[in-house]
Parts: sequence; C-alpha cells; structure tokens
Amino acid sequence: MKKVTIGVDIGGTNTKLGIVDQEGNVLDKDNILTPAHGDAQKYIEELSAAIKKLIEAVQSNEPIDVLGIGIGAPNGNYYSGTIEYAPNLSFKGVVPFIEMLGRQFTGLTLAMTNDANAAAMGEMVYGGAQGMKNFVMFTLGTGVGSGLVVNGDLVYGHDGFAGECGHTTLVPGGRLCGCGARGHLEAYCSAPGMKRTAFEIMVRDNATDSLLAGISFNEMDSKMIYEAAQKGDRVALEVFEQTGRWLGQGLADTVHHLSPEAIFLFGGPTAAGDLIFKPTIESMEEHLLPVFKKKVKVLPSELSMGDAAIVGASALVWKELEK
Amino acid sequence: MKKVTIGVDIGGTNTKLGIVDQEGNVLDKDNILTPAHGDAQKYIEELSAAIKKLIEAVQSNEPIDVLGIGIGAPNGNYYSGTIEYAPNLSFKGVVPFIEMLGRQFTGLTLAMTNDANAAAMGEMVYGGAQGMKNFVMFTLGTGVGSGLVVNGDLVYGHDGFAGECGHTTLVPGGRLCGCGARGHLEAYCSAPGMKRTAFEIMVRDNATDSLLAGISFNEMDSKMIYEAAQKGDRVALEVFEQTGRWLGQGLADTVHHLSPEAIFLFGGPTAAGDLIFKPTIESMEEHLLPVFKKKVKVLPSELSMGDAAIVGASALVWKELEK
Repeated sequence: MKKVTIGVDIGGTNTKLGIVDQEGNVLDKDNILTPAHGDAQKYIEELSAAIKKLIEAVQSNEPIDVLGIGIGAPNGNYYSGTIEYAPNLSFKGVVPFIEMLGRQFTGLTLAMTNDANAAAMGEMVYGGAQGMKNFVMFTLGTGVGSGLVVNGDLVYGHDGFAGECGHTTLVPGGRLCGCGARGHLEAYCSAPGMKRTAFEIMVRDNATDSLLAGISFNEMDSKMIYEAAQKGDRVALEVFEQTGRWLGQGLADTVHHLSPEAIFLFGGPTAAGDLIFKPTIESMEEHLLPVFKKKVKVLPSELSMGDAAIVGASALVWKELEK
Repeated sequence: MKKVTIGVDIGGTNTKLGIVDQEGNVLDKDNILTPAHGDAQKYIEELSAAIKKLIEAVQSNEPIDVLGIGIGAPNGNYYSGTIEYAPNLSFKGVVPFIEMLGRQFTGLTLAMTNDANAAAMGEMVYGGAQGMKNFVMFTLGTGVGSGLVVNGDLVYGHDGFAGECGHTTLVPGGRLCGCGARGHLEAYCSAPGMKRTAFEIMVRDNATDSLLAGISFNEMDSKMIYEAAQKGDRVALEVFEQTGRWLGQGLADTVHHLSPEAIFLFGGPTAAGDLIFKPTIESMEEHLLPVFKKKVKVLPSELSMGDAAIVGASALVWKELEK
C-alpha cells in the first residue's frame, strides 16, 4: 500500500490541500476558501471534510496509507500547533489548530509551521536539499519568507517563530515594510519591493521611455517587470540588478549567522534566472568574510512553483515520523 | 577526586590556560606567549609543557581528574580541530591543532572552536544561559564576535565557521571593516568602532569642548569614552547612544533569524551598563516584527571578564562529554 501524507497550505484567501507520496508527487489536490468570518471551528470542519473527500477520491483509484497531515500557515507555531495572531487571517488571537484538527483525525501524525518553513522542509525531503544538514531557503513573493535548517532540523527558536529573515534590516531608516518597521529586506526584495524599485528608478532618471512608464503603481507587478527586462528595457533590467544586490547583502548576513552549505531561492522573481541570480551571488560574495567566499551555493528551488506549499507542508509529516 | 577540564585561549600575543572545575571556578592559570615565529610544532610542545606543569601544580594541592582540554582560537574549526588561515596568528595555512596536541595527551577529550563560540559555551555551561536551549552571545572588544546556540547546541554550520554576526552589514557602503568589506557591525559596535563614532560626532558638531577633544585617534579607547560619559560629556554619551542603536539593529537581525530566548553581551563596553544596554534594547525592539517584541531578554554575560576565555574553552569539554 502506498504511504502518503497530506499537505495543507493556509493562505489569506485560499486553502490548498493535496495528497503527496514519498517522492513528493501530488496524487490529487483541492482548494477551499479560507474564511473571512473568523470562525475557526467551522473552518476546521470544512477543511476536515475536504481532506476526507480527497482521501476517498484517491483511494477509489489505488490503496493508500495516510500517515499524517502537515499544515503550513502564517504564524503557524510548530511547538504549540497554534496559529497566533496571523495578520492575513480572520481568526482572532491564538487558534489551537492542531488540537482542533486532531479531533477529526485521531491516530494520524499532525504538524504545523509557517509556509516558508514548510517550503524549506519540502526542499529537504523531496528537493535539492536532500542530504544537506545546513541550508537556508528564501521564498520571494508578496513577502519574503525564509526557513533555516541547522544540523538537519528546522530552526524554530525559543518561541516557534524563528526564520523571519525577510525582516532583517537592509537599509537603516529605509522603505516602510508591511510589518511597520523601516528598511527591511522584504520591502526591497519581494515582488512589491521590485515594483517600488522600478518606480524609484523611473523617478530618478525621469525614464519616460521605459516600457514600464505607462503602468500605474497599483497595476504593475513583478511579471511585467520581467517581461520588460526580456525586451531589454533598461529600467526593468536595473530593477533585477538592484534587487539582486539587496538580496545578496541579506544572504551574506544569513551566511554570517549560519554558514549554510546552500541557499535556495523560491518564488516568482526567481524564474528570471541569471537576471536575478547573477547580481545576487556577486553582491553576496562582496559582503562575505574571506572565510566564507566561494563556498556557499545559491540555487533555484527544485520544488514546482504551483505545488510547493502543499508539498512542503506534507514534508513536515515525514520529518516528524523520522523522530 | 575533583573532575576538572582545561581551557586554553589562543590570542594574537598571549595564550592563556587554566584548570577549571565543574562550577566554572579557575583553580589555577598560566600564560605563555603565542609565537610570532609560525612554528606550530614547537608552540604545541611549549603549550603541552605549560599544561602539564599547571596540572602538577594543582595536583600538589588536591587530587584532580583531568577530563580534557578545550581550545578557543581565532578561526578554530570545531569539525576538523584545525586552525585555518587565522589572520592574527603567525601559523601559515591549516594547522591540525587538535591532532598535534592529542599526541601529547592521549586519552583526554579535546575540542576546539573560536573564542566567541567558546564564550557562548561558557555561558551555557557555567553562566546565565544554564538551562537555555536557544540563545546568542555577542562579545564586544577589539572586534565583535558571536556564538549562536540552537536547540542546545552551538551552531557551527556547514564548514565549522558559523556565528560571525559581527560581519553582518549594518550600513550599506558604510565604514571599512577590518575584514575589508564595508558597513559591517564590527566597524560600529567594537571598541575601535566606538572610537570612530566619537570622532564622527566631534567632526559633525565641531565639539572642541568635549573631554575627548584632546585625545588623538590612536590614543583614544573605549574606556576613555566611558570615563568621559560618566562625567556627563555630551559626545561620549552620544557614542553610547549611537553604539546601542547600531547594536540593537544588529541584534534584531539575529532575532529574526533565530528567535532566541536571550542575547548575552560580553566585553569591555558592556561594563557601561544602562548607558549601552538601554539604547541597545530600545533599538532592537523598534526593529523587531511584532511577534518578537518584548520577548527577547538582552542580558550582561555572567562570565568574569578576565577568565571568560579560559572558562569558555574549558566548557567545550563538558559539552563534548555530554554527547
């Protein structure tokens, strides 16, 4: 019987769930709405029903042995299994998520962490970090998340919330970050950060000839910048260059903390390949102590963009079962 | 019979060694010159002779059971037991230190790491971090070192050199750091960094009335700045304020990586107490994500300034014996 685990990714709008085998293949998946009503009990009932339906759907094709459920959620706390004051979710305060979900699935292994940590776990269990004991994952998207692995284990820290490298300070007193502080990496290297950089460059150079000059602040996204860069647009090319320089500075800070074997980059902006990787690596190397230079690999994640969140969450279960 | 371990701290000029009991008391200690001649074999023979003499001296008073030798050394590699390309030592290339010393002390447990990691180990085994599983130590002196503890173990990283938080970037393109890069924390928060800040403030304000205005760039040290601050000197007080603000920014970066229970500060500048702790904590809190605010203790090290290096190195052995 095929052993599988279930991955659940709780986002602000949608909750994705999938059944994943030991090689990281998604056998089947589904979506439900993450509620805006804030009723956690009702949501967990809906989620449980969706999970059970998905299991039945796969089982009608082939026999499977479901070992557990892994959850990736904003502010998901590994130690307590709770979601705590998540700014993008409607639940109030601290939701004892694992305890509540566990009542619906007795006997299964349940585990929870935040989405970036789950992605790092996915990379370790199914992806490019297989066999690595010390590595770091940065996820570039609406925000910048990170998952840190030291001695083969995710770093959760004292309170379960470690690994928020997107909120290290790149530029003292710099851009306002979504968290309320200034100058954080996320305000520069996320997809919205790239948009802000594009406008910064257009302002600086009065770049009325840029392909990006006809797009409003609210319309522009990182994909448009990528498309303009591919057409040789000077502003768009400089956005990638500057984003890479900022990201490289941040990665160097992380190397100085943890000296990882590799850093994996995941998310939309990484699809630009050398456009982003080259300046990132150059800048990281410039900022490093000699003892770390030319030692740390910066690699694209091997997780598939669409399923990474599910796959990462499902990996939590395999890791728990190892213990 | 009293169980003891030996701690050796290899500095650029002096090598300190001491015999330490399980409570962290130094029973006896000695000093030899760290050689300028670069002959590692000869130095290890001298060091071994000094260790043996020290053991005999203590044993003539009370029976002791020597369990091992811990070494703190610049660029000391825990994994390989080697000292690698240490900029402040005369040895060339990679010295297989533990292997060479082990020939003189068969049967003993030997371990090596850098001095800041050793200090963190000392804090964990004998000091304020006893019982803590996740904490960080910053050592402020000629440079800024750090030791990171995650899940009860020192973080050595992929290559054995993790924990160089003094070389994270505080100010992009800022002050030249001793390592050759710009804007690193060490260039702002070390004792020489404080001196640079004092002159920066005098330059900015043309502060001819400062108590520090009569001291040359090469003469001034952080103790003079502290003494001026105690007399209410405005420049000196601002040095502590600014140093704390920079350090707090750096500590926040470390919290965002590791979410430690506490951060311990060690070294000369920490003797200034609130003068440095208050702005450090305020700045750290300002830079933190809400989820980390008011959670992380910033504490003075409980290791005694004079013996911390010996005591920290000796702690390595106790930790090895636990494994």
